[in-house]
Amino acid sequence: MARWQSGAQERLQRAALELFAERGFDGVTVAEIATAAGLTERTFFRYFADKREVLFSGQADFQQAFHEGIAQATRDDPMSLVTAALDRAAELFPDERRPWSRARQEVVDAHLAFRERELLKLSALAGGMADALAARGVEATTAMLAAETGVTVFRTAFASWMADGEQRGFAQLQTAVLGELQALVASR
Amino acid sequence: MARWQSGAQERLQRAALELFAERGFDGVTVAEIATAAGLTERTFFRYFADKREVLFSGQADFQQAFHEGIAQATRDDPMSLVTAALDRAAELFPDERRPWSRARQEVVDAHLAFRERELLKLSALAGGMADALAARGVEATTAMLAAETGVTVFRTAFASWMADGEQRGFAQLQTAVLGELQALVASR
Repeated sequence: MARWQSGAQERLQRAALELFAERGFDGVTVAEIATAAGLTERTFFRYFADKREVLFSGQADFQQAFHEGIAQATRDDPMSLVTAALDRAAELFPDERRPWSRARQEVVDAHLAFRERELLKLSALAGGMADALAARGVEATTAMLAAETGVTVFRTAFASWMADGEQRGFAQLQTAVLGELQALVASR
Repeated sequence: MARWQSGAQERLQRAALELFAERGFDGVTVAEIATAAGLTERTFFRYFADKREVLFSGQADFQQAFHEGIAQATRDDPMSLVTAALDRAAELFPDERRPWSRARQEVVDAHLAFRERELLKLSALAGGMADALAARGVEATTAMLAAETGVTVFRTAFASWMADGEQRGFAQLQTAVLGELQALVASR
């Protein structure tokens, strides 16, 4: 992908986020987003399938990170595979991305249309992880349980990472959440 | 609620499920569901807010079961509270409900409109459980983690319970999944 294209995609996302924050999801058209980014509606649809997708464009890279982590892990037990996936995914959330993620999440949380899309994406992520675990020899039910647990750890760490005043990095937070989960589940 | 009303609700659900299975979500109107159940459209909307809700009507009782389990638990540690919630919820899934759940899930899985609604309901369930755990003194992040883990155990057990040929009861499956999760998380 040429450099200017990647610039266009980011401009569309930033323009969309600003407009959604100001006027809500229903109050903004794709044409308005494109205009605000100095681009055409046709260009918008070259990058995003619909108005909701503009806030979920990193999804392919995101899923890919989890799959790569699992495929490249050196140990075979399910939780080591999940941890490898989480470690690899954490690289997609460097500190400089935090302000964008916070602003984006505020808009997502405020609109049912985005929350539904987010839940579908996380569900697809768990399904994809379960398949990747199965490809490494994990039995189907265990794979689903391990994948769902991995998504829970990711979501919990993500929420902490975005919290006001939180300074710790994503990888560190995920490790802390995983440790907390181990203590929690073992405590009973 | 009078006895005939409860009969009407169930008739509407069974008629809707049959029609959705035959013609898909978009191929069926509320009027057609009502007619198939020998009732009026107005009666339909007395029970269900929209066409999707007809397959999610037990949600209030379902959420309530988790909350009651947590409120009435004798032990205070987060996983004991979650386990109490799961045990209480299992009572809503007696073996005689299994054929209905299987038929319903087939229709849910086949339609994005239902899958989205299901994910929202499970997300609301996790949020409600986290609140109930917090009300028992569990710290907010731990409460969210414990609640999400509880929902994962429920979903995994539910999927097993509905699988072809599965004979074990819901409570037994949940206990097995919880044990598997403990072994999984501890193994790393």
